[in-house]
Amino acid sequence: MNLTLAIVFSIVISLAAFLMAGWLYLWIKKQDSSNVKIKTISDLIKSGANTFLRKEYTILAKFAGVAFILILVFLPKPIWNQPDFNAILSNNIAMSLAYVFGTVFSGMAGKIGIFVATIANKKTAEAATRGIAPSFLNGFRGGAVMGMAVVGSSLLGVALFFWITENPTMLLGFSFGASSLALFAKAGGGIYTKTADISADLVGKVELGIAEDDPRNPAVIADNVGDNVGDVAGMGADLFDSHVASLAAALVMAASIDSASNSHNVEMVFIFAALGLLSSIIGVVFAKMGKKENPTRALNLSTYITTGIFAVLTLLATFLFKFEWRLYIVTVLGLLVGVIIGITTDYFTNDEKTPVRKVAKASESGPALTIISGTSYGFLSVLPAMIGIAISAFISYKIAAPLGDGYALFGISIAAVGMLSIVGMIISNDAYGPIVDNARGLAEMGGLGEDVIRITDELDSAGNTVKAVTKGFAIAAAGLTVISLLAAFISEVNDAAIELGVAGIEGFDIMNPAVFFGLLIGAAVPAVFSSLLMLGVNKNAERMVAEIHRQFDEIPGLKEGLEGVMPESDKCIDIATEGALKELLPAGAFAIIITIIVGLIGGVHAIGGFLAGNIVSGVLLALFMSNSGGLWDNGKKYIEAGHHGGKGSDAHKAAVVGDTVGDPFKDTAGPSINTQITVVSLVASLFAVIFLTFHLF
Amino acid sequence: MNLTLAIVFSIVISLAAFLMAGWLYLWIKKQDSSNVKIKTISDLIKSGANTFLRKEYTILAKFAGVAFILILVFLPKPIWNQPDFNAILSNNIAMSLAYVFGTVFSGMAGKIGIFVATIANKKTAEAATRGIAPSFLNGFRGGAVMGMAVVGSSLLGVALFFWITENPTMLLGFSFGASSLALFAKAGGGIYTKTADISADLVGKVELGIAEDDPRNPAVIADNVGDNVGDVAGMGADLFDSHVASLAAALVMAASIDSASNSHNVEMVFIFAALGLLSSIIGVVFAKMGKKENPTRALNLSTYITTGIFAVLTLLATFLFKFEWRLYIVTVLGLLVGVIIGITTDYFTNDEKTPVRKVAKASESGPALTIISGTSYGFLSVLPAMIGIAISAFISYKIAAPLGDGYALFGISIAAVGMLSIVGMIISNDAYGPIVDNARGLAEMGGLGEDVIRITDELDSAGNTVKAVTKGFAIAAAGLTVISLLAAFISEVNDAAIELGVAGIEGFDIMNPAVFFGLLIGAAVPAVFSSLLMLGVNKNAERMVAEIHRQFDEIPGLKEGLEGVMPESDKCIDIATEGALKELLPAGAFAIIITIIVGLIGGVHAIGGFLAGNIVSGVLLALFMSNSGGLWDNGKKYIEAGHHGGKGSDAHKAAVVGDTVGDPFKDTAGPSINTQITVVSLVASLFAVIFLTFHLF
Repeated sequence: MNLTLAIVFSIVISLAAFLMAGWLYLWIKKQDSSNVKIKTISDLIKSGANTFLRKEYTILAKFAGVAFILILVFLPKPIWNQPDFNAILSNNIAMSLAYVFGTVFSGMAGKIGIFVATIANKKTAEAATRGIAPSFLNGFRGGAVMGMAVVGSSLLGVALFFWITENPTMLLGFSFGASSLALFAKAGGGIYTKTADISADLVGKVELGIAEDDPRNPAVIADNVGDNVGDVAGMGADLFDSHVASLAAALVMAASIDSASNSHNVEMVFIFAALGLLSSIIGVVFAKMGKKENPTRALNLSTYITTGIFAVLTLLATFLFKFEWRLYIVTVLGLLVGVIIGITTDYFTNDEKTPVRKVAKASESGPALTIISGTSYGFLSVLPAMIGIAISAFISYKIAAPLGDGYALFGISIAAVGMLSIVGMIISNDAYGPIVDNARGLAEMGGLGEDVIRITDELDSAGNTVKAVTKGFAIAAAGLTVISLLAAFISEVNDAAIELGVAGIEGFDIMNPAVFFGLLIGAAVPAVFSSLLMLGVNKNAERMVAEIHRQFDEIPGLKEGLEGVMPESDKCIDIATEGALKELLPAGAFAIIITIIVGLIGGVHAIGGFLAGNIVSGVLLALFMSNSGGLWDNGKKYIEAGHHGGKGSDAHKAAVVGDTVGDPFKDTAGPSINTQITVVSLVASLFAVIFLTFHLF
Repeated sequence: MNLTLAIVFSIVISLAAFLMAGWLYLWIKKQDSSNVKIKTISDLIKSGANTFLRKEYTILAKFAGVAFILILVFLPKPIWNQPDFNAILSNNIAMSLAYVFGTVFSGMAGKIGIFVATIANKKTAEAATRGIAPSFLNGFRGGAVMGMAVVGSSLLGVALFFWITENPTMLLGFSFGASSLALFAKAGGGIYTKTADISADLVGKVELGIAEDDPRNPAVIADNVGDNVGDVAGMGADLFDSHVASLAAALVMAASIDSASNSHNVEMVFIFAALGLLSSIIGVVFAKMGKKENPTRALNLSTYITTGIFAVLTLLATFLFKFEWRLYIVTVLGLLVGVIIGITTDYFTNDEKTPVRKVAKASESGPALTIISGTSYGFLSVLPAMIGIAISAFISYKIAAPLGDGYALFGISIAAVGMLSIVGMIISNDAYGPIVDNARGLAEMGGLGEDVIRITDELDSAGNTVKAVTKGFAIAAAGLTVISLLAAFISEVNDAAIELGVAGIEGFDIMNPAVFFGLLIGAAVPAVFSSLLMLGVNKNAERMVAEIHRQFDEIPGLKEGLEGVMPESDKCIDIATEGALKELLPAGAFAIIITIIVGLIGGVHAIGGFLAGNIVSGVLLALFMSNSGGLWDNGKKYIEAGHHGGKGSDAHKAAVVGDTVGDPFKDTAGPSINTQITVVSLVASLFAVIFLTFHLF
């Protein structure tokens, strides 16, 4: 297989994904929507989401501008150490441009996804009047636009940059751009959505005792906007980031092996990535809900079908292009482990299984036991995924090692590529969630009647279940990816060491005090990062609660629900937007700055330990927070379905406390840790040369 | 300095500690106590605590019996691989006996401590009628008996076994014995105390709205027993374990250096450890509360004085006996870092500082925000201690390294010895807490009047503040100790490798997949361990709540408080006792078995990673849980002092939820993780030869 052909193939498949996204958009657009009330609210949500994106991208642009200049001047090495302008052009300028395009491509995908999701929500709501199957299809296809756009732009960007620069190190710049955006989109969006959610609940449900989506509540629209910016755009940016990082790490290592041994690993990475996207496209086309099916099964089935298609297509490719069989096995193994981790994670958040049932029962004795038991199961839930990641890394390494020098670590990175290969389908399933969640709200606010709400409820519940699975999948993939970024970091350092004529690194010995030093501090970072995000949510929620109080006090007739009196929703949207971006900065800055400090103190060895500590504690906390949050959410839903006294009972009140605690766990801090891990890994790789040449000890 | 002299000096100081404990006991015994009601209740507590200890030691004896046989047959290497009976005697038999004595010495110290603490509680209560200073002195001296007994037996045991066997590896057996007991005492005691506490609160405070220590509540005595078995005996066993482990690790490395270079490091370790105990004895003698002082300051002052005395005495010893100056610096550095970590930890749990104040304020918006903000600060609180441990390990290594081969890692172990040198004083301060806590309950139940309760309240509050400091100290010391156990593990493996003629290990490279495999799984263990303990508390509390309900339903006149009607407290004590020991087993077994599985799969490299992952995630979670628990406790107390609406307000109710969640965090799971880390490290060291000779990959 010729490299150019492989790249062209990747580009063609990426463009096919965009075509698919366009077709899905046209399909959704031509679906019926006639209800004026629904349209009005949906438009409010759309405009709120766009406001957030605009502000987010504005602030990001400033941040990226500064980063652009820093990269231009310092990376991969200081501009004054480059021999001539050509070197500056093909290194510093190329990398800083790669960075900018990383942010732009990811931002573009987010914009497309939000654009369609905020149309699909109303279509899904109205389709529910015609039955569950068409409503499902609207929700799913709306989400699939995000899936196609994200993976299409990610693969397109990587392929283009590799083609132009022929230097995989430049991809680290592209990947860092994607990470920067993900930090804003995922963590910022996470703060946004939970600020609105908690504030709306605290004043609405707790203080005034009004319903969830009561239109009098000024924070309700912000809450619905939050679903879109946090769960559609944020999650998409997160997986864009992971996908790019997995490809970048694999390509750095593949190129290093290929240049030494005249093999074809770079081609293989591109072909496999493209086939993953192709499988997702096929999976999306055929995803439907049969007459007798339930939506959860339909979503899961499409994942399994995509997995199967991918396994067959890569088998053919391996046969046809004579790729290494061992690498094929590793790829499929990575994907399978991902699916298994997803399924095991489901056990801890599914309301048909013991943990949710026990937590619901414990809620009868008050909120303290809800929290204690949920925390306990949350801690327990980390075990299968941690073992899964550990085993897949270990086995991939062992399987790939006999292929020769460099293959062992490359094996791990290929397992990560395999795990993330069907990410197009994963995102489609995931973005389905907030769309049907929005649709449920619209059905209620638009007065579509009980039957329709029941249908959207069922779709929404499927979204929650599937979300837990995809989250486990995403966290595991991030863990594996970052292990391969660690390997990429070594490649980077050693290439630089040869050039500088200094000693490179063999590995990171835990008994080396610099490594251990890094290990401990790296492990603390995800905890502190989460802490800062959650404190940000608290602070921002305080502001919004004050605003809601003000409106209920000052707007005559609002509390009483007088006809025609509307709350000033835009004020709440402004608070959520500005607060989210402001509160995000300390957390992001902390993660980046401490990485640089550790590197400057202990050099590349300290950074190796730092990244390892960061991965293990990051994966641990991310799994804990995502799973316990999902568990509390479903525990509340289980009680609301009529168990342990049902809605309004003491058990329900306790479960609501659990759900509220779980909100920032599962939607702000937990999933943002993924991004934090990738960001610090990339900072480390980008500063590799600087840490190699200067450190205190 | 002659080795025999150094050992004799250690033994003499240990015996002096016992004399001191005896003198303190006699002093306490001759203090006034005349109130019959108080005596009756105090006797109930004493007998409950003894029941628990008896059952605990009975179950432990079975466990230890099995372990004894296993060690005898298999460790340090299988009995059939030993050349002759002499080798069996001086290895397998010596180690299995060392194991048994490790449990016996620690158990003895616990027994002495409980014996005096359950007398000191009533003396402290009655002394409060004469003023705060005499009451303080009773509480402190009662706690100091535990301090003296623990460190006296720990140093005595280590010195005797080293003297007899002349083989530091045998100390690992002694240390493992101490760990086994600590597992039962700390984790079992932790389940006990929180079962009783939560059950008493749930039925008493929450359901019936009666006061904390209301004598009608059948769980009240069990709750007071829990303070003793969890906080006196459990905490003592935990620190006995850490102290022995730090000495064992240091001696293993010192002996290895000394045999290669004819230096005097073993002597130094003994002399420094003895001087630490001597400093604590002096500190205890002079600890008093001045007229104008407050109890917190008195406790802290005694710690600082002891620290100062230790620094001066070791300075003199270093000068006199020509020990290495670099090692002196490392020792004092370790101690100073411990003190600094304690002080920083205090920031997060002190009700005069921001975190507690903010959490108290957040409680106004309901329990969900209490939990979210407390969790956030808890996560934040890990940073100073993690950085402190990282820096002290890094710097100790760098300072000691120039002394020659083996000194670098020995430096870390000496820092741990330094940090734990004043542990006699730390335990005295810590055991003071449950004694004055008990005294407060006795003062209330014995009707000693408002003034006396106010005094015991003040003493109790000082106990809480100091406890947070000592916990930070203990966790940090455990972290540092286990790093040196990791180094001891390498020594073990390499000695065995030479003997077996196989390759030893240089270190643990994170990029080695076996190491990374271990790292991930090791990191998951403390989370799962905590989870199992907390689920155990929940399960056990369910049983006890059912029993309390039964008594209120079936005993006529109990609920109404008829004169002469007493609850059947012993039933609750039985449930707490049996449940605690039963629920503890899965957690303990899990930790031990997974260590062995990882070792058998990935060999010594996987174990190296496993231990490192276990330390970082263990220290992280232990700090998080201990600190957030302390924070919630003090947040509740702050509100009860009249802020944010005071007792009975909504903020108070929310803070009570936080406090209840924090209970198993800070008193069951958090501090038990210390023990889990040590147990796992010792299992690894003991099985070193087996993992070296047999593993799957």
